Amino acid sequence: MASKKIRVPAEKSKNTWSGRFNEPVSELVQRYTASVGFDWRLADYDIRGSLAHARMLEATGIIDADDLTAIELGLSQIREEIHSGDFVWRLELEDVHLNIERRLTVLIGDAGKRLHTARSRNDQVATDVRLYLRDAIDNLINLIHAMQLALLDLAEKNLDTVMPGFTHLQVAQPVVFGHHLMAYFEMLKRDVERLSDCRKRVNKLPLGAAALAGTSYPVNREAVARELGFDGVCENSLDAVSDRDFVIEFCAAAALIMTHLSRLSEELILWMSPSFGFIDLADRFCTGSSIMPQKKNPDVPELVRGKTGRVNGHLVALLTLMKAQPLAYNKDNQEDKEPMFDTVDTLTDTLRIYADMLTGIRVNQDAMRAAAMHGYATATDLADYLTKKGMPFREAHEAVAQAVRFAEKNNRDLSALSLPELQQFSSLIADDIFAVLTLEGSISSRNHIGGTAPAQVNAAIGRAREWLSSSSNPAIR
Amino acid sequence: MASKKIRVPAEKSKNTWSGRFNEPVSELVQRYTASVGFDWRLADYDIRGSLAHARMLEATGIIDADDLTAIELGLSQIREEIHSGDFVWRLELEDVHLNIERRLTVLIGDAGKRLHTARSRNDQVATDVRLYLRDAIDNLINLIHAMQLALLDLAEKNLDTVMPGFTHLQVAQPVVFGHHLMAYFEMLKRDVERLSDCRKRVNKLPLGAAALAGTSYPVNREAVARELGFDGVCENSLDAVSDRDFVIEFCAAAALIMTHLSRLSEELILWMSPSFGFIDLADRFCTGSSIMPQKKNPDVPELVRGKTGRVNGHLVALLTLMKAQPLAYNKDNQEDKEPMFDTVDTLTDTLRIYADMLTGIRVNQDAMRAAAMHGYATATDLADYLTKKGMPFREAHEAVAQAVRFAEKNNRDLSALSLPELQQFSSLIADDIFAVLTLEGSISSRNHIGGTAPAQVNAAIGRAREWLSSSSNPAIR
Amino acid sequence: MASKKIRVPAEKSKNTWSGRFNEPVSELVQRYTASVGFDWRLADYDIRGSLAHARMLEATGIIDADDLTAIELGLSQIREEIHSGDFVWRLELEDVHLNIERRLTVLIGDAGKRLHTARSRNDQVATDVRLYLRDAIDNLINLIHAMQLALLDLAEKNLDTVMPGFTHLQVAQPVVFGHHLMAYFEMLKRDVERLSDCRKRVNKLPLGAAALAGTSYPVNREAVARELGFDGVCENSLDAVSDRDFVIEFCAAAALIMTHLSRLSEELILWMSPSFGFIDLADRFCTGSSIMPQKKNPDVPELVRGKTGRVNGHLVALLTLMKAQPLAYNKDNQEDKEPMFDTVDTLTDTLRIYADMLTGIRVNQDAMRAAAMHGYATATDLADYLTKKGMPFREAHEAVAQAVRFAEKNNRDLSALSLPELQQFSSLIADDIFAVLTLEGSISSRNHIGGTAPAQVNAAIGRAREWLSSSSNPAIR
Amino acid sequence: MASKKIRVPAEKSKNTWSGRFNEPVSELVQRYTASVGFDWRLADYDIRGSLAHARMLEATGIIDADDLTAIELGLSQIREEIHSGDFVWRLELEDVHLNIERRLTVLIGDAGKRLHTARSRNDQVATDVRLYLRDAIDNLINLIHAMQLALLDLAEKNLDTVMPGFTHLQVAQPVVFGHHLMAYFEMLKRDVERLSDCRKRVNKLPLGAAALAGTSYPVNREAVARELGFDGVCENSLDAVSDRDFVIEFCAAAALIMTHLSRLSEELILWMSPSFGFIDLADRFCTGSSIMPQKKNPDVPELVRGKTGRVNGHLVALLTLMKAQPLAYNKDNQEDKEPMFDTVDTLTDTLRIYADMLTGIRVNQDAMRAAAMHGYATATDLADYLTKKGMPFREAHEAVAQAVRFAEKNNRDLSALSLPELQQFSSLIADDIFAVLTLEGSISSRNHIGGTAPAQVNAAIGRAREWLSSSSNPAIR
Repeated sequence: MASKKIRVPAEKSKNTWSGRFNEPVSELVQRYTASVGFDWRLADYDIRGSLAHARMLEATGIIDADDLTAIELGLSQIREEIHSGDFVWRLELEDVHLNIERRLTVLIGDAGKRLHTARSRNDQVATDVRLYLRDAIDNLINLIHAMQLALLDLAEKNLDTVMPGFTHLQVAQPVVFGHHLMAYFEMLKRDVERLSDCRKRVNKLPLGAAALAGTSYPVNREAVARELGFDGVCENSLDAVSDRDFVIEFCAAAALIMTHLSRLSEELILWMSPSFGFIDLADRFCTGSSIMPQKKNPDVPELVRGKTGRVNGHLVALLTLMKAQPLAYNKDNQEDKEPMFDTVDTLTDTLRIYADMLTGIRVNQDAMRAAAMHGYATATDLADYLTKKGMPFREAHEAVAQAVRFAEKNNRDLSALSLPELQQFSSLIADDIFAVLTLEGSISSRNHIGGTAPAQVNAAIGRAREWLSSSSNPAIR
Repeated sequence: MASKKIRVPAEKSKNTWSGRFNEPVSELVQRYTASVGFDWRLADYDIRGSLAHARMLEATGIIDADDLTAIELGLSQIREEIHSGDFVWRLELEDVHLNIERRLTVLIGDAGKRLHTARSRNDQVATDVRLYLRDAIDNLINLIHAMQLALLDLAEKNLDTVMPGFTHLQVAQPVVFGHHLMAYFEMLKRDVERLSDCRKRVNKLPLGAAALAGTSYPVNREAVARELGFDGVCENSLDAVSDRDFVIEFCAAAALIMTHLSRLSEELILWMSPSFGFIDLADRFCTGSSIMPQKKNPDVPELVRGKTGRVNGHLVALLTLMKAQPLAYNKDNQEDKEPMFDTVDTLTDTLRIYADMLTGIRVNQDAMRAAAMHGYATATDLADYLTKKGMPFREAHEAVAQAVRFAEKNNRDLSALSLPELQQFSSLIADDIFAVLTLEGSISSRNHIGGTAPAQVNAAIGRAREWLSSSSNPAIR
Repeated sequence: MASKKIRVPAEKSKNTWSGRFNEPVSELVQRYTASVGFDWRLADYDIRGSLAHARMLEATGIIDADDLTAIELGLSQIREEIHSGDFVWRLELEDVHLNIERRLTVLIGDAGKRLHTARSRNDQVATDVRLYLRDAIDNLINLIHAMQLALLDLAEKNLDTVMPGFTHLQVAQPVVFGHHLMAYFEMLKRDVERLSDCRKRVNKLPLGAAALAGTSYPVNREAVARELGFDGVCENSLDAVSDRDFVIEFCAAAALIMTHLSRLSEELILWMSPSFGFIDLADRFCTGSSIMPQKKNPDVPELVRGKTGRVNGHLVALLTLMKAQPLAYNKDNQEDKEPMFDTVDTLTDTLRIYADMLTGIRVNQDAMRAAAMHGYATATDLADYLTKKGMPFREAHEAVAQAVRFAEKNNRDLSALSLPELQQFSSLIADDIFAVLTLEGSISSRNHIGGTAPAQVNAAIGRAREWLSSSSNPAIR
Repeated sequence: MASKKIRVPAEKSKNTWSGRFNEPVSELVQRYTASVGFDWRLADYDIRGSLAHARMLEATGIIDADDLTAIELGLSQIREEIHSGDFVWRLELEDVHLNIERRLTVLIGDAGKRLHTARSRNDQVATDVRLYLRDAIDNLINLIHAMQLALLDLAEKNLDTVMPGFTHLQVAQPVVFGHHLMAYFEMLKRDVERLSDCRKRVNKLPLGAAALAGTSYPVNREAVARELGFDGVCENSLDAVSDRDFVIEFCAAAALIMTHLSRLSEELILWMSPSFGFIDLADRFCTGSSIMPQKKNPDVPELVRGKTGRVNGHLVALLTLMKAQPLAYNKDNQEDKEPMFDTVDTLTDTLRIYADMLTGIRVNQDAMRAAAMHGYATATDLADYLTKKGMPFREAHEAVAQAVRFAEKNNRDLSALSLPELQQFSSLIADDIFAVLTLEGSISSRNHIGGTAPAQVNAAIGRAREWLSSSSNPAIR
């Protein structure tokens, strides 16, 4: 594999290695208050918003056609400069907006100075953030769909793979592995819904709110909204520039996604531990040890579990940030971007890797089955059997508890007891009990929507594929 | 006012006053693991769920009609006992479910023992929590609607009340107070949407999932769902008993509501501070001081601001709780209820009080107007004036900055400068500038959707009333 | 066991059952702003503080001897009334302070009205909270000591119990179980240190700060501090009444304690899972299932793990609460008490139960040993062996990796390979290798401070007992 | 000012601009699991730790003198390469440790391969983190001291500057501005104590714990500890490699520092708002507006307030990360570094700027004094006056409340009432009342330790300077 050089940021490096304090306070203040170090990521969205704004300004007669042409040419060139890496970002120009505007003015003169007519950075940045987040949500939904597809494929291969269903990490009842996997499909489906619901609130246009009160120019906000693909305009200018609840809502949805993945990761780690030995992950998702030559560690799921903290932390950061802020815009809000970017990046990488990791899982069916034989997993089936024969459930529960104690003392499974032994606990027990006490008997009897019977799981997978094909972006399928 | 005696819980009191450790560990374990101390609040929902379950058991032939009749009578009596306070809750019966079931068995014998057929406490508690939370959400939406109505009424009375619009707590541009209030209407509208979106995910039936794998009885889950008003069934049994993402989603929506109210509270506190003096709150939302006889403190908004922390904390508690939990049910999840209950209670009380508090706000229009005269609030209007006369915006911005410096040095407002004085900064300035530089001129010029012109605010109020009447529960209006 | 009736608070009940809104808003505001519903727990501390304050007032001539005598008698009677449950707490008197003062005035007349001279509720409540928290810390330190003793006893019994040491939940190297347990001793030792450090900052007297600026009376704050056992006085009156950093610091220390216990709980749950089967918990810390008769669930460790969320949440609540509060006292701070009380209660119960639960652990040495045989736990020892014979560590690491692959393919442990087989991987390997490759050989070779050799663990236990006996409260030993 | 080019990381840029998914998953996994992108910051500490380890290896005969010499030379060269920017960091070498070790082996051959003898990356990284954090704490303590010095200087200049002391943001009692500032000195003093206490727990040596169980080499851990300046060794190997409580404790202390600064920031923002007008910040800590030419916004305090969220978030991230992790090392812990680094960076920048910002505050004494005249700030003094003349405090409180109502109705201050007017409310009032009712009378009467009398504040400043000179690092003074 080709080696890759990590670029250590020069400035950071200087700070760290050679005494932090050779930087004068005034430069430090400039760096502290500037946002261009991270909001350059909004540049494409900033340009797109500026183009729509300029076209509206021209259409309403606020600027003339020549100005518009110049602005379009200038912004187009700037976009290319940025993509090619030739654009010179300047810290003293504070943010992505002024960096681009200043460059535009250098390129096209007075027309560039007219672009900021009827807007403020307050509504401009809110617009950029919303355009960015809309794209991020669309992308994340596609990635969840891809991971859901991987879950479906793995589930489908494991319709008959019996494993112990756990509660309290104690063996409870047998389930099929495909059913277990489908639980995560359901969780991710709700995660998609949450992102879609959040998108509705993201997809409103703040431009026109100007600094906070609206603008004295005869702007056409609906036209700008249409051009940028927004569902409508923010209907109050003070709200438009000051609230960031849509970012917080996104981060809350993201925290739930990571929480779900942390649960699956915990299970992958457990299942790969030799005491379980249920699965093996493909080598490329694991690493070895610098000291122990025999180790194969499930690094990726462990990191996912750990990164849940990072995303929860970003949510708390944003809630703390907004608490008790008076209207309208305050500089505090500049702090909304880094947690948002990092949340999007963390989810993007995690989901991409997860989909691939699922395809590389090797299932050890024997180990799963052996574990399901421990712990009297079919005891509930015996109780249900007695109830169906007329014993009230609570009494059946007690009878079975005694049977389990007997079997435990004799170190045998319930299914290994003889009929007379079983009949000690209830005379209702007959020969047909042995079909009930097998793992397959237990599983196939749970034959209703949501149950673990393979037929039901198969149907669930079918419904899931239909949902996926009706809701996914075509690009992913 | 009649005095009210606070009941100090006897047990707590004992712990606290007379040495904590006269309680044997075994009793302590019982108390530690029992949930009936808080989940008694689910009793009505538990009974409702049991009735629907019993009717389905009868309809599918799992129990007979006599059993059903007995169960209905028994549960009806238990409900009355609970409402009248005669029901004896027993700690050693662990939770609300076993307390009710045991009482039922005492009352009706074997039929009571049959009620738990084809279900487990795992799906039972998940059902109870969802029924409770659905009611809570409906109630909270009504309360937000009531608060929105109060905002609309106050906004309507203040369509012409000029106040300084702040950014960075510096005077930025004049706005009308009604416009400022409508920003909160918008925030709360999104909060309602979020609760409604969350409700869709709450309103699914877990019953039938049983312990984790489904049940071997021929249950009819759709029938139970219909009877309980659910939109559908949870489609995976493991997911149904183990995930609590809907509670976390609710708490995240609640944290945003409190964040919005913390911002309004911060403003009320500021506005009531003598340095602002913009408003006065009705006495009953304030308290005095034990030492300073002259004090009138805005206690209610301060408490709301403080209680934001409580709700954020509950959200973090739940996210921490669910992180890395393996499937399916684990006892950790018992900890989901107290944060949820307290979040609902906090929001319920806060919203009720807030709606009433808004109706009691006395506005000091003179103080607001005087504050708007500070800080050159119409400077942007001068810049816009110049731009409309052809000067590029960035140059106009610079010219006005010089005019402000001149006015500041002479300790006058821009509108108090003479025409020749103004013309120093640009020859484009003519006599028509003075209309532009008044507060009313500035406000009425922001005449587009979302802007602060009174006509626009009035229209926004109209749209808001329409939305309210189309979306509210009739009970509230 | 005698049954225990849970008292469902009447008021709450009413709210919940019969429509929440029959409570007029004015009563709701009273309840919302009153704190006596929870701060009654401070009553003993409030009385103690008032007695010290009154004695100082008399000593400095601010009140006379007769007043003091009356106050002492009155407060003594009130304390008895509270302890016996006869004290009538009144919601309309807001808090514990006014409830007690009003009662005092009823009992002793004008002298009671003089007690509040030279103080305010602002410095009074800060004093009460500090007295409460100091006691709570002392109590918690004793409880940690008790849990540490239980760890030591269990560790001492398991000096020779071999278990797999895990990293990444993969078998890494063998350790003795006693060594593993001592890791938690070390964590808890740091937790004790943190509580002790926090106590220094708690133990300062705020009284004398009055409302915020100090008092015009010639108070003797040092005398009050001495009488109440404080280490000194808060040296700035504004700081004294407005900061609660000491509560937050306590909650952060508490969150770390719970984090440590969550890790031990996770391990107990894993170890009790049949796939591990390392331990069994005493029945009284476990519960069964309502549906599955065979289950024995480790409820207590699961709840501890879950309650970590609760304590983390309280920490976040308090940090959010204090963020950006201007000086001096604001009503927000009333919200500091419930999170603090619940944190103390949660830790108190958890630590008490944990110490007892540790004494009831049954260790399955065979299962532990068998698990240590999986996963080539002595591979590092082979690498070290080679290194000691002169091979550079990195090369040895590689040679052993090949040996492990060979053993894995042949499904044998390293120690089960023949000498010629081992010599394939290095000619440095000789007959003495087999002692190195045993579990005991591996363990006993880690014979330095901090290592897992039984002699070292034994020494660590000895040092631990010494530390305990020098630092504990005599009451516990 | 010279312009500064911001370097947009090439890789990031590619991801963002040109479709994220041209990166194969295998490279993505490599990037996802590698830590060298951030842990390169530990390089100096890693080298320092390796040197001490190598010297110990030589002293105990594990490696020979030639190896040590080679290692010392090689590491010295690597340090230079890193500082000069010539070192090539390779992503596929995962972390700072392997990057350096691999380079060392290239430079010096077999001796480099021997360096990792008797250690693991698990104890190595724990050592690096502790060395880094110890330095960071020392540095932060110096920075707090510098900020405290700035507070003292400003307080000393404002011993006689009268301002309103607020509670609930209502005028309560007059204080001097110097006294108000000294409240923050006290808070920061406790912050220094917390960092110092945390440092004790940071400053222990993990090396020797190896992977988790210790090492089979005859290491001398105490010698390594001494050379690296540690106070002692971690006494349990499992604990040494797996716990990160010291990082969490640090972040909790950091969150309190930011909380304190958020409060001061809130006050600076309020005081600079035109409605208060108490202070002005130097221009370099403020910025203007892109649209409103007249604005001067207090950006720095707003950002500090906002960054409180970031630091709280990091604390939550780490607590979430550690919750329920089984021993010993898990990959999750790799996530501990970024929150820690960002917390240190945020505090470092914030404290540096704050100290400088305080020196640039211009105080508007007239505005402060005028505000103190509002709101009957001396009402408590009238009550105290009456109490001293024998009226019980509660009655005096009531009498003054009536006097305030009278004054309010007549729109005058208490001090502006005539003697007969005052005597309406109590015949105890005599001519000496007017000295009591002045702001200066009120202030100078609070003449006890912690009170606002200028003499007391002056004494407090004196004690503070003494504490600073006895506790600071000489470098700062």
